[in-house]
Amino acid sequence: MDKDQNILIVLGLIGGSYARALTKQGYRVYAIDCSPSSIEFALKNKIVAGGAVEPTKELVGSADLLIFALYPHTFIAWIERYQDMIKPHALLTDVTGVKGCVVYRVQEMLRDDLEFISAHPMAGRERSGVENSDESVFRGANYIITPTSKNTPSAIERCRELGKVLGFEKISQLSPEEHDEAIAFLSQLTHCIAVSLMTSNDNPNLQFYTGDSFRDLTRIAKINDEMWSELFVLNKDALLREMNAFEREFERLKKAVEEGDKEEMRRMMKKSTERRTLFDK
Amino acid sequence: MDKDQNILIVLGLIGGSYARALTKQGYRVYAIDCSPSSIEFALKNKIVAGGAVEPTKELVGSADLLIFALYPHTFIAWIERYQDMIKPHALLTDVTGVKGCVVYRVQEMLRDDLEFISAHPMAGRERSGVENSDESVFRGANYIITPTSKNTPSAIERCRELGKVLGFEKISQLSPEEHDEAIAFLSQLTHCIAVSLMTSNDNPNLQFYTGDSFRDLTRIAKINDEMWSELFVLNKDALLREMNAFEREFERLKKAVEEGDKEEMRRMMKKSTERRTLFDK
Repeated sequence: MDKDQNILIVLGLIGGSYARALTKQGYRVYAIDCSPSSIEFALKNKIVAGGAVEPTKELVGSADLLIFALYPHTFIAWIERYQDMIKPHALLTDVTGVKGCVVYRVQEMLRDDLEFISAHPMAGRERSGVENSDESVFRGANYIITPTSKNTPSAIERCRELGKVLGFEKISQLSPEEHDEAIAFLSQLTHCIAVSLMTSNDNPNLQFYTGDSFRDLTRIAKINDEMWSELFVLNKDALLREMNAFEREFERLKKAVEEGDKEEMRRMMKKSTERRTLFDK
Repeated sequence: MDKDQNILIVLGLIGGSYARALTKQGYRVYAIDCSPSSIEFALKNKIVAGGAVEPTKELVGSADLLIFALYPHTFIAWIERYQDMIKPHALLTDVTGVKGCVVYRVQEMLRDDLEFISAHPMAGRERSGVENSDESVFRGANYIITPTSKNTPSAIERCRELGKVLGFEKISQLSPEEHDEAIAFLSQLTHCIAVSLMTSNDNPNLQFYTGDSFRDLTRIAKINDEMWSELFVLNKDALLREMNAFEREFERLKKAVEEGDKEEMRRMMKKSTERRTLFDK
């Protein structure tokens, strides 16, 4: 990826880790974040070369690559309001967790001389903010690019390069719809499960009796409720399909427990063991 | 805990880690394991001072403390068959994952001059066998003692000391029934969830799109089907209660997603975030 370009990251959430990784690799990175202390922190720690708490003509207009790390509705509102400032022929990308309801809309509203190629870094953490950012979260992680018919091969290639430079291990390409289906299962359903598990028992001493399996399973039950409730609603149909599919399997296992049917339990456990092996890092 | 005693561990599963921890602390540890290669490995790596592939009068008869790391039915069968070999006034303990159906039965069938005090180390791992054992798994972990009216204060105290010597952080005392209820939720339900999640989607490429939340949640989907199907059946009533309670919360969240009710979602997420904080190590 060309180092003679200006990269602007509209911060929040995972943007700080992007900034760290790109700065470390020798890129000129600028940032916008509505929090003055975040910008101050990023400048002081040399995570970015410059930054501001709101979009300025100078900052936005000089960027060749713009990376948006915002909630879906904030991202769309940003484009609506500020896209006139963007330099002609700049490339835009994002980190948004749902694609179908974002990608087409942004591509449609975008000026003709700009291109938006959407991507999803699968490297979320419970803590957010540039102060907690850490570029090592990308190591060994997955990166999904979700191009549409409006995207050019060169933009897809630049997005792929960005994923490589950030340090992702596996870079895949899915349609926005395929992405939303996979993410409904892999990410949203898991958060639904962790939250429901955590709220289903009020015994105040359980932390003294637990093992690590419960801790691992509920790590994501500490959840950014503003972001995730938005993501759930925006991907409602796919999420409900996956919730129902999970419930069917859970019911199957429950029936086996009720009937003391060890054969059926062991059949499911063998299948889960075999399938889980695919996910080992 | 008195170092002038012989400790016999009937191996399998977590027994290897017990042996490592106790040997390191200067105790004389002997082991029985039906696998010759496990005994050979334990002797060669000085994890135990001696061992055999089956109970011998010499090994069993000289132990002051016997620790059983066996499946519930194997443990009960062992006591039935070999308890005559045990030295008078020896103390017996175990690591069994269910208590109600084991503790009373073993205490009832045991010779009058022996005492069995049951305990559960909350430090399971996906891999088993003495070759994979590791005493560091006990660090920061929970240990639950489940005494009954048949237990003496001195046996409870010795069991508590054993937990301390092994390196457990928090040692609790529960009745067998309280234990089974807590474990149905904390351990068995989590395994049910991980297995059901893993079997509910057959897309063969998901490992290239996933993030760590799915990996963490399904770590325990690689499961010892023989042991866990037995544990599920032995704790059926408590497990079914917890499965139903979880389903109710999951349904509540599903309804909120269906109705786009962000307030209800966020209420549950805030509760789960707050409750999960209690479990941070």
